[in-house]
Amino acid sequence: MGGGAIQAAIFAAGAVVGGGIATVIANKRREATALPPRPVVTQGPPPVVGVDVAGQPRFEPPKGVQIVPSLPPVLRNGHPGPISDLLVRRAYVAAYDRRLRHPSWTAEHLNKASLTPSGGSSDSGDRSKSTFVEDESLPAQFRAKLQDYFRSGYDRGHMVPAADAKSSQDAMNETFLLSNIAPQVGDGFNRHYWAYLEDWCRKLTNNFDDVYVFTVPLYLPRQDSDGKWRVSHEVIGNPPNVAVPTHFAKVVLTTKPSQETSIGAFVLPNAIIPDQAPLTSFVVPVDAVEKAAGLTFFAPELKARSKHICQSTKCEVTIRRFDDARKNATKAIAAPKH
Amino acid sequence: MGGGAIQAAIFAAGAVVGGGIATVIANKRREATALPPRPVVTQGPPPVVGVDVAGQPRFEPPKGVQIVPSLPPVLRNGHPGPISDLLVRRAYVAAYDRRLRHPSWTAEHLNKASLTPSGGSSDSGDRSKSTFVEDESLPAQFRAKLQDYFRSGYDRGHMVPAADAKSSQDAMNETFLLSNIAPQVGDGFNRHYWAYLEDWCRKLTNNFDDVYVFTVPLYLPRQDSDGKWRVSHEVIGNPPNVAVPTHFAKVVLTTKPSQETSIGAFVLPNAIIPDQAPLTSFVVPVDAVEKAAGLTFFAPELKARSKHICQSTKCEVTIRRFDDARKNATKAIAAPKH
Repeated sequence: MGGGAIQAAIFAAGAVVGGGIATVIANKRREATALPPRPVVTQGPPPVVGVDVAGQPRFEPPKGVQIVPSLPPVLRNGHPGPISDLLVRRAYVAAYDRRLRHPSWTAEHLNKASLTPSGGSSDSGDRSKSTFVEDESLPAQFRAKLQDYFRSGYDRGHMVPAADAKSSQDAMNETFLLSNIAPQVGDGFNRHYWAYLEDWCRKLTNNFDDVYVFTVPLYLPRQDSDGKWRVSHEVIGNPPNVAVPTHFAKVVLTTKPSQETSIGAFVLPNAIIPDQAPLTSFVVPVDAVEKAAGLTFFAPELKARSKHICQSTKCEVTIRRFDDARKNATKAIAAPKH
Repeated sequence: MGGGAIQAAIFAAGAVVGGGIATVIANKRREATALPPRPVVTQGPPPVVGVDVAGQPRFEPPKGVQIVPSLPPVLRNGHPGPISDLLVRRAYVAAYDRRLRHPSWTAEHLNKASLTPSGGSSDSGDRSKSTFVEDESLPAQFRAKLQDYFRSGYDRGHMVPAADAKSSQDAMNETFLLSNIAPQVGDGFNRHYWAYLEDWCRKLTNNFDDVYVFTVPLYLPRQDSDGKWRVSHEVIGNPPNVAVPTHFAKVVLTTKPSQETSIGAFVLPNAIIPDQAPLTSFVVPVDAVEKAAGLTFFAPELKARSKHICQSTKCEVTIRRFDDARKNATKAIAAPKH
């Protein structure tokens, strides 16, 4: 395997490679000056914050307190940077994966109040007033772009659903940031079964005081005929930029005034799912999602004392095909204006 | 696509799934109690630290200074946690990817002194005295395990080479932590061309004052016959745990007393590479590795003022086949003792 294969592969990663070293050296100065004037690691104003050892987010220290980091000498010339950006929005918190260019997880807190417009009906979120936008709080070279999704064959799938952020137009608009989006199969998934599951999560607020929902793109291996396990996933955009998850998980926790908690996890393939598929067929242990995603959702004690959500309420989706015309209209991907 | 496919896929992710919801509910309490007594997100003593907004590591605040984080309510029941753990070792710094179960990057600083035993020859690192060990500073469920590599067909490939950590036996031992290891093709790659590249990096200390080396596992897409770009990679272990990178990159920065810096990046496929392949055929722009990995190695200003490493020194590896017998002996993977 020689240079040819590598050129092909790294070109896919978005490099400007002509033919090896000569081109690289010749282009170097041009590339450097072609970079935008902003520093490479650029963050907008908060909400981006750090995450500490225990996985707890670190907010800025109180005024007057200064932390003087002593950078290890090995990182004197630069730090490769965080793999993920923690994004704190009005209606959700998310971690954005800079390599895959979609969230590694999103977190929401739903209850009857959160699903009700806060500032009167005139301020409530209206989906038709929101548009998909690139997230300028992320460094340009790691941003998912509108162009990446254009003609990709995939929907721009909300991780935090727009309908979960009706408290205000601003809150809903934030769900349309591409940092809250991952490529999803449209017909039969994003517009149907996945939407049914999102609706089921919202309806949990009828039976429980508080509902916490984590949404997690997954890359699960399959066993090939040679007995080996492999992950295979598409990457969309030209050059290829945004990874297409093989599966998506919803992990939920619900509470009642009696202090009773219920938890459950559902893993769905990013594929056409028949309306008739029972929701219970997608139930998996929370631990399984944690292992596959490299994440921890709940402490062992919390898991141990919680009931399974399908013991606390009916795990059954409501099929909603009647509003397909509206959905198809809003889901069409317009060409980016540039 | 129904429940069968999902069960297969999530089983691959290490779940204990028998047949859907009934099994999950029945097993829930047993699973919960079967968990180890330690909290899910466990860290050993330092070196694990946080990373702040700008990608700078955050060390513990000075004694007497306390940061009171105000956790967003949405994360009240738990935070999904960092995707990566920053590990500060004697001879290197690394970020460990909890999902892929290998480093997302490692960083080293080499110079003539660092490659010389510090405490006299009796204390210098001796490879034959080091053994591969699981990294207990990582949460158990996210650790790469010796068993994962056993009979996988892949070598346990050092990201930071053992030979770069000869300053002491402790320093060398830390390179054998599985958090510094990724699955590599053995014959023709890890034991040959990749080793030549590691050797070339070390020899840079003969021509430059300081040498900084980043090593980065990559997952690069290839274009299929249908025109779509896909990433396909194996996952080793039973259940499948550790992802096998498609490529590996070395990104180097060298300095001279004249303040002159040189930089360069090399991307090699995780495959047999003929000894005759010129090192220059693997040269790619640093930006390309950054985009593919979701990382930032150097500031644009630093890139703009640096020469290409292949203009500052000869980019040519030395073929070393004479010590194959020794390497084959040390690289054989013994069955874990348990």
